[in-house]
Order: sequence, then structure tokens, then C-alpha cells
Amino acid sequence: MSPDRGLLVVGTGLIGTSIAMAAGLAGYDVMVDDVDPARLDLAISLLARGGRPWQQEPVSVAVVATPPNVVGSVCQQLLRTGLCSTVTHISSVQLQPQLEVESTLSLPAEFVGSHPIAGRELSGPQHASPDLFRERSWVICPTGRSAAASVEAVVGLATDCGAVTRVMSAEDHDALLARLSHVPQLLASALAASLVGMDRASVALAGSGLRDTSRLADSNPDMWLQIVAANAAAVAPALRPVVDRLASVLGELTQQPPAATGPAVADLLAAGRAGRDLLTGKHGERPVPWATVAVIVPDEPGALARLLGDAASAGINVEDIRVEHAPGHPVGVVELAVQPAGREPLHRELGRRGWTTTSSPPRTG
Amino acid sequence: MSPDRGLLVVGTGLIGTSIAMAAGLAGYDVMVDDVDPARLDLAISLLARGGRPWQQEPVSVAVVATPPNVVGSVCQQLLRTGLCSTVTHISSVQLQPQLEVESTLSLPAEFVGSHPIAGRELSGPQHASPDLFRERSWVICPTGRSAAASVEAVVGLATDCGAVTRVMSAEDHDALLARLSHVPQLLASALAASLVGMDRASVALAGSGLRDTSRLADSNPDMWLQIVAANAAAVAPALRPVVDRLASVLGELTQQPPAATGPAVADLLAAGRAGRDLLTGKHGERPVPWATVAVIVPDEPGALARLLGDAASAGINVEDIRVEHAPGHPVGVVELAVQPAGREPLHRELGRRGWTTTSSPPRTG
Repeated sequence: MSPDRGLLVVGTGLIGTSIAMAAGLAGYDVMVDDVDPARLDLAISLLARGGRPWQQEPVSVAVVATPPNVVGSVCQQLLRTGLCSTVTHISSVQLQPQLEVESTLSLPAEFVGSHPIAGRELSGPQHASPDLFRERSWVICPTGRSAAASVEAVVGLATDCGAVTRVMSAEDHDALLARLSHVPQLLASALAASLVGMDRASVALAGSGLRDTSRLADSNPDMWLQIVAANAAAVAPALRPVVDRLASVLGELTQQPPAATGPAVADLLAAGRAGRDLLTGKHGERPVPWATVAVIVPDEPGALARLLGDAASAGINVEDIRVEHAPGHPVGVVELAVQPAGREPLHRELGRRGWTTTSSPPRTG
Repeated sequence: MSPDRGLLVVGTGLIGTSIAMAAGLAGYDVMVDDVDPARLDLAISLLARGGRPWQQEPVSVAVVATPPNVVGSVCQQLLRTGLCSTVTHISSVQLQPQLEVESTLSLPAEFVGSHPIAGRELSGPQHASPDLFRERSWVICPTGRSAAASVEAVVGLATDCGAVTRVMSAEDHDALLARLSHVPQLLASALAASLVGMDRASVALAGSGLRDTSRLADSNPDMWLQIVAANAAAVAPALRPVVDRLASVLGELTQQPPAATGPAVADLLAAGRAGRDLLTGKHGERPVPWATVAVIVPDEPGALARLLGDAASAGINVEDIRVEHAPGHPVGVVELAVQPAGREPLHRELGRRGWTTTSSPPRTG
């Protein structure tokens, strides 16, 4: 096969194996490598359209999908072989590997950073999927010296994997991801950490708010330690205003005599709403927020399917679903999000079919 | 009707109207009152099983469901009338209204605090539902002087509304809710507030992690200002260790020369995981975590129903669903959570029926 479509993936964890799967389906000649022979074997056995161990053949694109702390050195090694027309990686942090490569190789034209924003709270090739990148964002970070052909090759790979690409500098990427991903991780972990020492029966009184707010704390601590350490220079200025704001709130809450008006708390709550408006596209890409219909659903096989079948028979598309479980109880409340015009018809149709429902006005996601 | 089942609800917002609806269905003789005549009319029109304006009749139980900052004074007024055998309220904060009542009435036997843990990011009678409390927790907070009959009456009302009751002191309630609800609210708001000033296109690169972690910031800022102010004495000690921990992390991230190991970040991430274990019942009430199967689903009416119908035909109960939307794109990824034993059969069955799936190992939460 021509080296034009030769793709080397180094590191066969969740992301690397998923890229190998997606690229294989898109017609690339996929080769894989890993320092762990057992993981490499597992990954190869999972690659439906083939994928073989790399044996130092020349390749068009090499993707370094190793843990963050060795991305820079593995990129250097590959660049030194002269076998790769383009070398990229998939790290959540862009500047540190770029600086590592630059430290000995004065930024070769073959090097282009990239970051598919498609992680999950799982790892390992056994959880890989060729669809992991479908409709997800994939940021491409050329250096000042990246060859146009190499940038195109990485954009092409990301597109072939089904992702939507966006090009920006490593510095911009790292500052952005610090705010959108790394600080949220630290806050979720800090919140979950504050539960340590409580008894389970007390924690069980928590509503879905605490569960949602702390979900990211399930992520892999080793990987996140590397990410936060590698992006410390961008995480610190992103975290500082959050800590300062919370410290102001704390100061206000402990003021003697107690403050009557609470400007710090009021500012925090108001700014929080304004920030959410940016995120949920309330005034942006989703001009019409969804309406919800809440339904009581028994915990038995087929109940959800029956509910959604009944919704579909009303001709209404369910845009989102949220299932609220009451631990140890045989029923749950399911919230169906629909276009506002669909709320009343859905409410009526489900009521007619015997479901206990209550409809609510628009909410945003 | 006998005053034994006479129920007065003062304040016809979301919670008050929902209690009136649920109690009406359970056979109570429901009377309502509100300082806002228009809201009162709306609430009465929504009460399917009747519900009339209170005209100073004696009642068995009075529920004060006003905004938090006037709960104490409204309870006092009702207690002074001598018309209510029991007076309770539904505030997210328990000690402050209790102290207010005590300040002039030396804690009458008729007074019992309570708090149904069933809020949402909505307000107003138009969003009320008699099912709001079904299978939810409802904390009952007797004072040292509450009459046993009054405690029983409030427990009975909560149970009649479908809730699961738990009795504890006002102090314990406030300390617990500070950790489980008020601090999460402040952290979510602080995170969302940190987005202010960013452009929408950049924020759109965020994954579902940021959306989940900041969701609570959509809540009503006026109500939350009252809650946090009223519970400042319990919120401060709950917030302080979180702020201290984040400040340590910030100090470590800005250390010169940079720290190699990062004990503060490592401790944060590890403790966060430990806290999540408490919350998700990994070792508790849900001993077997769910496995997930991710499926590509087109954005069209009936697609979700078809998917769940196919899942049901494999005889597998879907425990939870998460829909991940890519804004502006015609497909989404739906994660179905099932018992671990159901993962492979579901994976196979969906594949057989033409769905693009990938299965994942157990997750919690």
C-alpha cells in the first residue's frame, strides 16, 4: 500500500485505538505500536479492518497517543527516524510537548499538535470505538514552522475520523482548555473531596445537583495529574479568579456582624447565570430552548421503550432525556426534553395512554 | 369537612402548589393563601381536586411555602392565630426560621420544621406537579419542644405526598444541606461565572463535563441568595476546606521552580474519587455498577424510541440514558446504562438490528 495512506498510531489506549479503528474504516493503512506488548495485541485483535504492528516502515502520518507525560519525547523519537512525513499527537496539553520537541529539534516542519475533544471517564483499548470522534471537535495546533502539507494531513485525518476541526495556536488551546476542562475537573474533584468522612446515609440525601456537579471527579487521577502539571502555566491564571471569588464569598459569609446584602454572593450567582447563558447557547445557536415533560416510569424492562414509543406515536422528537432514580425504589421520574411546540401534544398523548406526567416550560441544557 | 384533614398552604409557588396538589389527591381539605392575588388565582385554577382561599378556618396542618426570607415571620403569624394545630414550612434552611419563631414565641409545641428535597431549576405554580415529591426525601426537623402529634402530622403529610421521610435536628439538617446542596451551588456558579467574557465559539468547544459541572448555575439567584445568607453559619465551614484545598492547588501550580510531584493536585484528585465513591454507592447500595453501551442515533422523530424498543426486545432494562448532542449536527451519541450482564447481549442485539454501537465497562453515577 502507498505510504500516502500509511498511518502509525503509537499508544493503544482508548484514544489511540479509537483513531486506529476510525482511520482503518476510512481506508488508511493502519500500523500500531505500544511499549506494552499485551495491550498492543489486544488493540490489534480489536481492529476490525486490520492493523498491524509497525516495523519501521515509512508512514504518511504518525499519531502519538501515549500518556501526556511522554508525548514530547515520543514525538522527538519519531521525528528523528525520518520515517514520518507528519508527526502529530492527541494530548490535552499542547505547548509542553511542542516545547519539548523544539528543545532538541528546532521545531521541524513535520510536527503539528492536535487534540480531539472526545475523552470519557474510561481508558484502555477495550473501550475504544471508531465513533468516538463522530461530530466531536478536534483542535489542530500548527507551530509557526509546521508545513502546510502536514497541517492538511492532520486536518484530513481528523475529518476522516468524523470530527469537526478547528485550528488555533498551542498557547490559545492551552488557555482555552484550562478554562473549559482543567478547572472544571479541579472544582469537581474539590467538591467530591469535601464529602470524604460523611456517612453514606447522609450523602444519599443529595439531589441530582451534587451528582452532576461532581461527576468529573470519577476521572483517572494519574492522567489528570499529568495534564494539570503539564498545563500549570495556563491552569493557574484560570483557577485564580475562581478561588478569589470563592474566598470573597467565604469572607462575606463569616463577616461579623453578618452582612445584610451579600454583594459577593449576589455577584457570584448573577455571574454564574451569565456564564451559563454562554454555554447553553440561550441567546446563540439554540435560540429556542427545550420544554420538558416529566413522567413517572416503573423500573421494569421495556418501560422506557414503551414511553418513547408512545412519544414517537405523537410524532414528537425527544431531544434529550434525563432519568432520575430514587435509590431502592421501584419507580423513577423521566424528563423528556422536546421543542416547545411539542410539549402540550406530548403531555396530552402520554396522559391519554395512561402515563402520569407533568409538563414544564422551556429549560436549557 | 373535619379540620383533621384541613391543610393550609401559604405561598403558592412551585413547592406550595405541588404540596396542595399532592395533598388534595391524598384526600386533604386544601386551603391556600398568598400575598399575590394573581398567583393565588392561578394556583387555585391548577388544583384539580379543589382548593380554596383560606378564610381563617381552623386547620390541622399549615405549611409555609413562602420565599426563605419571610418563612420565620409567616410561621409566627400563623402560630399567633391559634387556628393551626401544627405549623410547618418547607425551607432549605431550618435553623433560622426556628430561631425567628423562638425569638417571640418560645418555640410552641405546634411548630415543626421540614424540607422536601425536591427542587428544580424552575419556579411558579404553573410548573407545579402532584408528583414532585414521589420517592424523594423529605427531612422533618422537630424542635426540642415540638409535640409528638405535630411531628406525626408533618410526617403524615410528607408520606401522603409520596415522599420518604427522615427526621433530624435543624442544626444537623443545615450542616448537611450546606455540604450536599449549598456548596455545590456556589461552586457551580463560580465555575460558570469564570466563563463570562469568553466568546461563544470558544465556549462551544466544551465537552459535557463543563455542562454538567456548571448546570446548577441556572438556578434562581434571588432565592439562592436568601438560602446562602440564611445558612451562612453552616455554609462557611463547609465551603472553607474546599477553598483552602483549591488555594493549595493554586499555590502549587504557581510554585517557582515548578513542583515535580504535585502533592496538592494529587491529593485533590484522589480525595475527589474517594468522595464520589460515597455518592455513587460504588461500595454501598448499588454494589454492581452499570455498564454502558454507546449508540449513534440520528436526530429524527422516533429514533430514540426505536432504539429503546430494540433494547427492550433483547429483554434488557435500560437503567439510565445520557444523550450527547453535537450542536448543529444531525446525529447524537446515546449512552445506555444497563446491568453488567446485559451489556454484551444488548451490544449484539443492537448491532444485529443495524445500530452502530460500542460497549463500555461499568461506570457509576
